[in-house]
Amino acid sequence: MKIKIIAFDADDTLWHNEHHFQETEKKFCALLEDFLPQHTVARELLQTEIKNIALYGYGIKAFMLSMIETAIRITDQKIDAASLEKIIQFGKELLDQPVELLEDVEHVLKTLKSQYRLVMATKGDLLDQERKLRKSGLADYFHHIEIMSEKKEPDFEKLIRHLDIKPSELMMIGNSIKSDILPVLNLGGHGIHIPYHITWAHEHAETPFVHPHFRQVERISEVLAFL
Amino acid sequence: MKIKIIAFDADDTLWHNEHHFQETEKKFCALLEDFLPQHTVARELLQTEIKNIALYGYGIKAFMLSMIETAIRITDQKIDAASLEKIIQFGKELLDQPVELLEDVEHVLKTLKSQYRLVMATKGDLLDQERKLRKSGLADYFHHIEIMSEKKEPDFEKLIRHLDIKPSELMMIGNSIKSDILPVLNLGGHGIHIPYHITWAHEHAETPFVHPHFRQVERISEVLAFL
Repeated sequence: MKIKIIAFDADDTLWHNEHHFQETEKKFCALLEDFLPQHTVARELLQTEIKNIALYGYGIKAFMLSMIETAIRITDQKIDAASLEKIIQFGKELLDQPVELLEDVEHVLKTLKSQYRLVMATKGDLLDQERKLRKSGLADYFHHIEIMSEKKEPDFEKLIRHLDIKPSELMMIGNSIKSDILPVLNLGGHGIHIPYHITWAHEHAETPFVHPHFRQVERISEVLAFL
Repeated sequence: MKIKIIAFDADDTLWHNEHHFQETEKKFCALLEDFLPQHTVARELLQTEIKNIALYGYGIKAFMLSMIETAIRITDQKIDAASLEKIIQFGKELLDQPVELLEDVEHVLKTLKSQYRLVMATKGDLLDQERKLRKSGLADYFHHIEIMSEKKEPDFEKLIRHLDIKPSELMMIGNSIKSDILPVLNLGGHGIHIPYHITWAHEHAETPFVHPHFRQVERISEVLAFL
């Protein structure tokens, strides 16, 4: 294997992300528990989010709009505006969260940068992702930043064309089997999966499988053994 | 002048956009006229939008969140959830609008494509802009699509570097002096301004000025005379 480019997912691969969403979701469910049990609120929210993905895409603004919509629907329009204002506030705080890097991320990027071109390939809201990258202090490690509205095969095909490499020269490292690994393997590239301790329900996929271009590790520092 | 790349703004340059926002704004102001006169609601909304740009960026989801926030604030939290649900519905309809091309756009792109590399350079929400491009049927005319979170000098600098040209080899065509023309002229590029009949208040800038790399035309077909 002759890897030229290593692409990293960002959220929950380079820095913590999902747990911020889950904390916000807990506050949201607590706010509505006079109307419905918290786990029911969470289920309703997930349904709204999935239904809205085609229209809103991923990211915090989409999440805010889905929380507001869910709150109105499950209370039969009885929720007061003060509570909805709180939901907007939850979202603004989420947008303003500090970025905490996962362990050893900077060391790994520094080590790999001398031998490979590094790319960040992330799905989500353009401004959110740019802001997190800036706050992370990692921007200078990357030769190219790709913020994608989806991470499916055609999206990775476009990226590979843009980077002017063969699919087999790409190694993708990320925490989502569904979004980071499967599409890249299907195109002929390589993937290393680093599970994060929590995963958004919509990103779940069956994990351990065998594929000559695939590995799974527990933490990012372990990828150095394969590169 | 030796232009290699012609970059087009999209919203209100290739297709109609702002008037959809203004129609939605009218419905929003009408919804709230029991609380405040419509022009006051419009002013409050604009203030909220500008205050939120740094956090939300541009695009319809940002607009929806700013409408909801404005409605709650100016009614002293007295607005009912049913009205807020209507606002979400206004936003979803806006996301689902058909794309109507401006006159002669396709003819101009077809004519220029044989002599120049064409680029679309647009500011806004990633998914919104990708969806409009797909609906427009214009994607195949463009060598490269750049969706930017801002259109300021550093953003155009990055684009020029990415395209691997000199600033003087870039011609930018768009309806906003502030976002499409001034930053490109400042970098040494060329600009053609095509005013749209309505402009979002936040994009207003003083117009007619003299600059050797600048022209203003009334409609897109007129750019062919200079290229």
